[in-house]
Amino acid sequence: MIVVTADLLRRQLAAIFEAWGMDRDHIATTVHVMVETDLTGVDSHGVGMMPTYDRWWREGKINVRPEIRVVRERASVALIDADRSLGHPPSTMAMQMAIAKAKETGIGVVSVQHSNHFGAAGHYALLAARAGLIGMAMTNAGPILVPTFGREARLGTNPLAFAAPARKNNPFWLDMATTTVAFGKVNIARRAGKPIPEGWALDTDGKPLTNSQQAFELRRLTPLGGTRELGSHKGYGLAAMVEILCSTLSGSWLAALDPATGQPGDRNDIGHFFLALNPDMVRDEGEFRDDMDRLIDMLHATPPADPAQPVLVAGDPEFATYAERSKTGIPMTDTLFKEVREVAKNAGAPFLLGA
Amino acid sequence: MIVVTADLLRRQLAAIFEAWGMDRDHIATTVHVMVETDLTGVDSHGVGMMPTYDRWWREGKINVRPEIRVVRERASVALIDADRSLGHPPSTMAMQMAIAKAKETGIGVVSVQHSNHFGAAGHYALLAARAGLIGMAMTNAGPILVPTFGREARLGTNPLAFAAPARKNNPFWLDMATTTVAFGKVNIARRAGKPIPEGWALDTDGKPLTNSQQAFELRRLTPLGGTRELGSHKGYGLAAMVEILCSTLSGSWLAALDPATGQPGDRNDIGHFFLALNPDMVRDEGEFRDDMDRLIDMLHATPPADPAQPVLVAGDPEFATYAERSKTGIPMTDTLFKEVREVAKNAGAPFLLGA
Repeated sequence: MIVVTADLLRRQLAAIFEAWGMDRDHIATTVHVMVETDLTGVDSHGVGMMPTYDRWWREGKINVRPEIRVVRERASVALIDADRSLGHPPSTMAMQMAIAKAKETGIGVVSVQHSNHFGAAGHYALLAARAGLIGMAMTNAGPILVPTFGREARLGTNPLAFAAPARKNNPFWLDMATTTVAFGKVNIARRAGKPIPEGWALDTDGKPLTNSQQAFELRRLTPLGGTRELGSHKGYGLAAMVEILCSTLSGSWLAALDPATGQPGDRNDIGHFFLALNPDMVRDEGEFRDDMDRLIDMLHATPPADPAQPVLVAGDPEFATYAERSKTGIPMTDTLFKEVREVAKNAGAPFLLGA
Repeated sequence: MIVVTADLLRRQLAAIFEAWGMDRDHIATTVHVMVETDLTGVDSHGVGMMPTYDRWWREGKINVRPEIRVVRERASVALIDADRSLGHPPSTMAMQMAIAKAKETGIGVVSVQHSNHFGAAGHYALLAARAGLIGMAMTNAGPILVPTFGREARLGTNPLAFAAPARKNNPFWLDMATTTVAFGKVNIARRAGKPIPEGWALDTDGKPLTNSQQAFELRRLTPLGGTRELGSHKGYGLAAMVEILCSTLSGSWLAALDPATGQPGDRNDIGHFFLALNPDMVRDEGEFRDDMDRLIDMLHATPPADPAQPVLVAGDPEFATYAERSKTGIPMTDTLFKEVREVAKNAGAPFLLGA
């Protein structure tokens, strides 16, 4: 395990994107979002994505000089064309636009079409909460979720993030995939040679799979709920809701449907959804934040099943990790360290992290 | 089992509300929402609620002559005070207002405070879809959901409904509690003397409970996911999101917090959240509906695990039941039939359903 400072990691990522020829302001935004995500401990969605971004870049799937533009705009909604950019710049622009609309009309929704991976959904929801607003962010993703009663993947992990500001507490901050678990958890079990619990993944017949190696190869995750008996139709419904709000509303994903079969093809055409809602235009100024504290305090005070494990509120672990890593740095596995060295080499960029 | 026509059931419910002294237009709205819900097969949320409404009415918890008013309004958001009405009239008004705003500005959100049970959340989301818009509806409810790592209930079943219109298919129509199962399912198992699956309910130590009689008495449901291993923190997070959007945003529920302890007290002060979003102000007119058909067709075409059980899309069972019951009528258990007779008697209203 290697530990790097946030500042050094920012410079390394910036050097790579610069070598790719990315616009300077897009570099600043992308690096900021990625490193903030690493600081919160969501290791799968920060620098950990760099090897994947590198592959997409070499395959020509990322436009590093995109013309990101507002396609359509009304008082409280808008559509942004990301022009096949990495998702971070158009998504930051979209949430800022949603926030501005929410300050004018009470709510803003901005849809993004023709984008790529945008990092962690939670980052964008938190932008709204930091501005005193309720925020939501969602994205669709490549197929890995098997609909209830099915045996093939048809939807993505389709995460949904929600944040709301309090006054003395940190914001309530939820960021969840609509699958039972993220694919990374299957991979961790596989590397450890351990089975996975029944209800995480399925085999090609749609039956529960506990062999982590097979689950890794087959890439068929269950919707949240895991089994029909425990409500997987609800997780499937949520994943479809996210798909509708991201791909159908923005007009992204269907471009990648195979017109002959109507089935999913190669999907590097992602849509996002951003919402900001102004609670001070619904209630008297400040009342919402005060009541958020009362709600959060009440939840924290729930008697725990195990006295050693208090009841948490969404965001608690991430804010704790952020405070810690801001002091101690960001840990990287040896594998990831080497992979980033390779990414830098592919780009013709200096490797700044170490030897 | 007794079967009654929708029309007869409407007249019976209207007679009871009339005897309560309810406003004529509130009667029409409430009866409409309740019977539509029975027609879709959501038996727990239509006439099945009548014995509970009767109890609340006798306890003075329902204001049958409410002054429902708009407390605050901006271009795209509003707050409605239900004045302790049954939830159906203020909720119908709120969604109609959200729809009107969405047609003007692209999106409308209307929050309702100081309300009661509003029936099925799905009904209101579908109002938006019938108007060509994307709809969402949520409500908080009395505490029955135990937060992950906790051992006492702190949130409600807190349902979330979402609907989106297609062109040739029925709308996508999701209506789900954020608990693993509705409490009614525990009661069905109890009546049948059967155990419940591990992951539905908890005992007073926060441990899984399979005894349905105990689960019925203790009223401690798990969040969707069921166990921490299968992602119950996500269901808990969703339930908290619904609580924030319904009670905290509207300023309802905290009125019922015990000021001394900050813990939940008697909560007959419910808040709701309604959202309507105009896809024709994001994409070119009609494109969204066409793509909804492509998405729904793709999901229906997912290869099934069992050829006898095709993959469904949210709303499929409800629309099928609606078509069937519109022809054959609405079934009522003998128990419910007798209970409604008692409700009519309590109100001094005629009993119209039979002998």
